[in-house]
Amino acid sequence: MTPSSALGGPGSHSVSSTGGTASSTALLTDHYELTMLQAALRSGAAHRRCVFEVFARKLPQGRRYGVVGGTGRLLEGLRHFRFGEAELGWLSERRVVDEPTLEYLRDYRFSGDITGYPEGEVYMPHSPVLRVEATFAEACLLETFVLSVLNHDSAVASAGSRMTMAADGRPCVEMGSRRTQEMSATAAARAAIMTGFAATSNLEAGRRWALPTLGTAAHAFTLLHDSEEEAFRAQVETFGPRTSLLVDTYDVDAAVRRAVEIAGPELDAVRLDSGDLVEQAHHVRQLLDALGNVGTRIIVTSDLDEYAISRLQSAPVDAYGVGTQLVTGSGAPTASMVYKLVERDDASGAPVQVAKQAVGKRHVGGVKYPLRMLGSDGRADTELIGVGASPEAEDEAHRELMVPLVRDGEIFGEYTGAEGLRRAAQRHRRSTAELPPAALRLQPGEPVLPTIFV
Amino acid sequence: MTPSSALGGPGSHSVSSTGGTASSTALLTDHYELTMLQAALRSGAAHRRCVFEVFARKLPQGRRYGVVGGTGRLLEGLRHFRFGEAELGWLSERRVVDEPTLEYLRDYRFSGDITGYPEGEVYMPHSPVLRVEATFAEACLLETFVLSVLNHDSAVASAGSRMTMAADGRPCVEMGSRRTQEMSATAAARAAIMTGFAATSNLEAGRRWALPTLGTAAHAFTLLHDSEEEAFRAQVETFGPRTSLLVDTYDVDAAVRRAVEIAGPELDAVRLDSGDLVEQAHHVRQLLDALGNVGTRIIVTSDLDEYAISRLQSAPVDAYGVGTQLVTGSGAPTASMVYKLVERDDASGAPVQVAKQAVGKRHVGGVKYPLRMLGSDGRADTELIGVGASPEAEDEAHRELMVPLVRDGEIFGEYTGAEGLRRAAQRHRRSTAELPPAALRLQPGEPVLPTIFV
Repeated sequence: MTPSSALGGPGSHSVSSTGGTASSTALLTDHYELTMLQAALRSGAAHRRCVFEVFARKLPQGRRYGVVGGTGRLLEGLRHFRFGEAELGWLSERRVVDEPTLEYLRDYRFSGDITGYPEGEVYMPHSPVLRVEATFAEACLLETFVLSVLNHDSAVASAGSRMTMAADGRPCVEMGSRRTQEMSATAAARAAIMTGFAATSNLEAGRRWALPTLGTAAHAFTLLHDSEEEAFRAQVETFGPRTSLLVDTYDVDAAVRRAVEIAGPELDAVRLDSGDLVEQAHHVRQLLDALGNVGTRIIVTSDLDEYAISRLQSAPVDAYGVGTQLVTGSGAPTASMVYKLVERDDASGAPVQVAKQAVGKRHVGGVKYPLRMLGSDGRADTELIGVGASPEAEDEAHRELMVPLVRDGEIFGEYTGAEGLRRAAQRHRRSTAELPPAALRLQPGEPVLPTIFV
Repeated sequence: MTPSSALGGPGSHSVSSTGGTASSTALLTDHYELTMLQAALRSGAAHRRCVFEVFARKLPQGRRYGVVGGTGRLLEGLRHFRFGEAELGWLSERRVVDEPTLEYLRDYRFSGDITGYPEGEVYMPHSPVLRVEATFAEACLLETFVLSVLNHDSAVASAGSRMTMAADGRPCVEMGSRRTQEMSATAAARAAIMTGFAATSNLEAGRRWALPTLGTAAHAFTLLHDSEEEAFRAQVETFGPRTSLLVDTYDVDAAVRRAVEIAGPELDAVRLDSGDLVEQAHHVRQLLDALGNVGTRIIVTSDLDEYAISRLQSAPVDAYGVGTQLVTGSGAPTASMVYKLVERDDASGAPVQVAKQAVGKRHVGGVKYPLRMLGSDGRADTELIGVGASPEAEDEAHRELMVPLVRDGEIFGEYTGAEGLRRAAQRHRRSTAELPPAALRLQPGEPVLPTIFV
């Protein structure tokens, strides 16, 4: 698949992955990426071949695994990482960098290689989820953008995965747009679908990545009408009985009876958004059944997270609507990934492993080669990471984890767009299914696979 | 000031507040806003005059006050809240709504009034921070977008305010772009500046709202070179001695001596990014002074939040770089504001106060009129909220809190753009200065002003 056809080029006005349209993503970065470039151009080191790796030193407190999210968005955004006249003009006017640096930026195209865990793959502490190989100049410029995308989307994906695991097949719907920044909302919706959510309420995400969207009515719709009956009638007349009626604006019991009376036995669903949901779900189920509406589903929404979903599994709930806790990463709004230089050429062109020694922030120098080791039962049991060379694992069952995402600047299109997301969702299912059963535990604990460097 | 000139219209390709360019913001919304519109158009209630209010039921756990953020971005985005052919085509193709609804959307322009706490103002639980008055159809459509902007930006502003309060005049710099979604990063940078941060590392935010940006170098720049000395020399040759050198890649002591040797007495700053910052700041200060660099500043960065800043106040630190904890709201990544219908006309055109009765989610019906009551010392002492009519407070010192932001669809331009942000920052200073001293306390406690309904 050739990538450049999938989205517009830098000059077009088609929708991009990140902003409203395909304008440049190149200023979505930190000032110091450009000043480092300027100083490195001057010292001559800017053209040294470098390897940067992205990893998280640890998972959020007590989490058993993480899920890589955002790779597709990252590649989509990379296509628009170009310095046009608008960007160059501003950098020049504000004297962010000097003229030779502006000249370099004018011609900037990422021409290196990017390898990584494909989107949807499970990761552990220190898993090298992305590797960027290019000159310092080319790779340095991408740091902030790469981290912004991966840190946000992986945080949402890691939370979303726990929620769909807890829901154990019951559909989850993403409804958190209003609780996060408006563009984050689209990215969060995408990450949710990737981890098994059935649909999202976010229309822009639906448009951008061909996601199923849904929604019916809020309390305001009921309050707008002179009575609940009028509101229900308006909704059923408009959408037919295969709709979802919100039954907790006034009195739940009365609302359920009214909903059944108006919509009849075909009523698709009632939604509960407050109170003790376990108790209410049981009560409403009995009432619906008693009224003959055995096929009417119960949807619950109200500050749900993976723990609440788990508690509700014993109740007769048919679907979960999840908002705030999903889009804010359920207590871990960022995946805390970093982008570190691990190897670079010296003046003679020979590669040198490098690592900083800062207290508490050391990292392991050298290019990493990860393998997921599998036990005799086919379950994953170790994250094995070779430094400098791939570990020898011929005799043991294992799985390669890294795939080429960009080669010589050419983006592998199969990881982008709606199709890329569909594949990521499949990968998420396979990768989580391969984990030991302890991965399902919600209580705090150690990562489910030990990370071993060899 | 006329607003429409400040930013491009819906058809232009200038930069908007939300996406990369001035494309529509209208699909940054939930599916159900449009289905409610369709059902209300059918029932006829869509054209009833409505009042929606935005408020937070509570502050994040233990917080003393909140800060309204995002009003300017909201108004900037409202200009681009239009359904163009691209949006209508997708809605039609996916059958999100029917043909009459699409016709309504085609002509959609918000023509109502928006009143609210101006950006930078302090808010309390139940403060009506925004009031939207329009037909149901017009006001309903804005819900998700309004909440996304206010919830995110207010969360960051509320955290940022505590950090600048804790820093007590020492400059804070926002550096969190890499820890949040790439477009959230620009909004977070803006909110930080509004609450007194001196600068941001985010270039796109700098371009968009004329913010001061800064940054020099990361550990990768040192590691790129064959020695720390080469790296420091490259940086000082490029930017002169008035630069900031990062001194914790290898050995802090050696690096500080090296920095002084290379840059001389004019060296602007050294940056510490790891370890025990209090202890290190004291040590590095002594070393710099002993070397004669009494004017060289010490900048610290490393997972800072308001508590860490407070602890560092006793150390000889000259500036704080703040990242993750700022952009993720320091434990409260969303302000949890809601958008509730509080009044609407009945069939005869007479206004009716409305409120839902859902357990734990009740709200107070009727239009609210808030006043900030002031004590004899000029300090704020109560958030007084009149329901249905402004409270009588002629004899007592007080301040009006709500200002017109949009009238008959015309946006008041003084709240938007770089100038609007500058005014919001002034307002934040004044509004926080007026709070009782307990507002400065970082330990968990009650909101510093009681909210009283009359």
